[in-house]
Amino acid sequence: MRIINPGGPIGVFDSGFGGLTVVKELMRQLPAEDLIYFGDTARVPYGTKSKESIIRFSIENAEVLLKRHVKMIVVACNSSTSYALEVLKNKFDIPIVGVIDPGARKAVEMTQNKRIGVIATSATVNSYAYDKAIKYFDSGVKVFSQACPLFVPLVEEGWMHKKFAVDLAEEYLKSLKRARVDALILGCTHYPLLKNVLKQVMGKKVYLVDSAYEVAGEVKRVLEIISKNRKGKKAQYQFLISDRPQHFQAIAQKFLGRSIHVELVADK
Amino acid sequence: MRIINPGGPIGVFDSGFGGLTVVKELMRQLPAEDLIYFGDTARVPYGTKSKESIIRFSIENAEVLLKRHVKMIVVACNSSTSYALEVLKNKFDIPIVGVIDPGARKAVEMTQNKRIGVIATSATVNSYAYDKAIKYFDSGVKVFSQACPLFVPLVEEGWMHKKFAVDLAEEYLKSLKRARVDALILGCTHYPLLKNVLKQVMGKKVYLVDSAYEVAGEVKRVLEIISKNRKGKKAQYQFLISDRPQHFQAIAQKFLGRSIHVELVADK
Repeated sequence: MRIINPGGPIGVFDSGFGGLTVVKELMRQLPAEDLIYFGDTARVPYGTKSKESIIRFSIENAEVLLKRHVKMIVVACNSSTSYALEVLKNKFDIPIVGVIDPGARKAVEMTQNKRIGVIATSATVNSYAYDKAIKYFDSGVKVFSQACPLFVPLVEEGWMHKKFAVDLAEEYLKSLKRARVDALILGCTHYPLLKNVLKQVMGKKVYLVDSAYEVAGEVKRVLEIISKNRKGKKAQYQFLISDRPQHFQAIAQKFLGRSIHVELVADK
Repeated sequence: MRIINPGGPIGVFDSGFGGLTVVKELMRQLPAEDLIYFGDTARVPYGTKSKESIIRFSIENAEVLLKRHVKMIVVACNSSTSYALEVLKNKFDIPIVGVIDPGARKAVEMTQNKRIGVIATSATVNSYAYDKAIKYFDSGVKVFSQACPLFVPLVEEGWMHKKFAVDLAEEYLKSLKRARVDALILGCTHYPLLKNVLKQVMGKKVYLVDSAYEVAGEVKRVLEIISKNRKGKKAQYQFLISDRPQHFQAIAQKFLGRSIHVELVADK
């Protein structure tokens, strides 16, 4: 593998805000690493778009990051990972980590009864990406998936604590409860913010897999293998956005608990 | 006004599916008119995007229709009308009708206590387009607005009849009930599908303004003025889409109650 810029930042892209859960975990688990985040807020969401469009958008997003000399790319969007990860790996000559495999591996590790649930966007569910990844790690596991398109706007309204959040979750999760899954993958980077509601609906015995946490661990392992871990230096963080930079800045600062600079990258 | 193609079709664009409520009304009220619909499903939704992006998308959408020699353009998207209608009118030399004015005029006509409510996407609410239009027709009216970002995905899930649809509507509408509005503009082309829920929450005495119905009436008046009404011929309908044509076709056929042909216009 050709190393373009071993001292460079880690690039992360997502369709919008959701990938910030991955950024937060990377900051926590790899505090010395520089990060560049690109959020394609002009075309968000990806979860309802076609395979062809998601692949086109993902290639364009990777190119935005490569222009900034990133040393690796984290695809912090489940829909992009589902459809575009293999295309990106073939097209670009740097390490690329998606959000599917780390979560799938953890769920396989945690399940006792070999029945795993996956909640995600329509695009991720329709791609069968989690099914394939889980069966790769353990072909004996049964996978039950459910698309939950209202969860993202619910989180973006900040209504995680409303009573109807539980009613909505009950509606979406009833087939997974009936299927008696004992591990549930939160297959969309927004969903960790609904953890309490999901725990209440699924019950304490179901293990919830937080992809953001697992992805950061995977990035750490990759960096150890290719020995490009930075140590000791103060990390730099850059945020690029294709629409509404102020809006993004306000939400991201609140979520990350630090002030950040956001740059508009328009008309990609 | 220069007439490019007086015998041509009426062009209609929207960010996605919502504009079909306008198409259905046009088919009903102007059965002899040819229609070309363009739905920008690759970048849907517009309601959460910035003014600059919405203007850029709207110009591109109008150009798609102009290439097909439309005689007028209906902007069947409230977000586009709010931010881009004036830009489009200045840029293109054919009649362009938006969805804001017709609904605003009807609400002013119907209100008794001069207190009008508007529910719409964030972009439409933040643009103050309805406020301006209502005050243009009657400066003595008070306007109360509420953005309802969960209504579109709720309608797209087909969950208009679930109990939590009423809970969600109660949450969104409580400030408008408190304000004692007696007319409520459904300022997003998806919302007429929630009419029953909105009626239940607001009470029978509040008049609900259906923009789609009012817009079709406006188009009819414009065509009468510029005398390009077609009579007697069998109308042709064309549907252009920037992503997921089969998905659009399935939903549109069900909604319109007729079989249609859908063409993909990619990489705009």
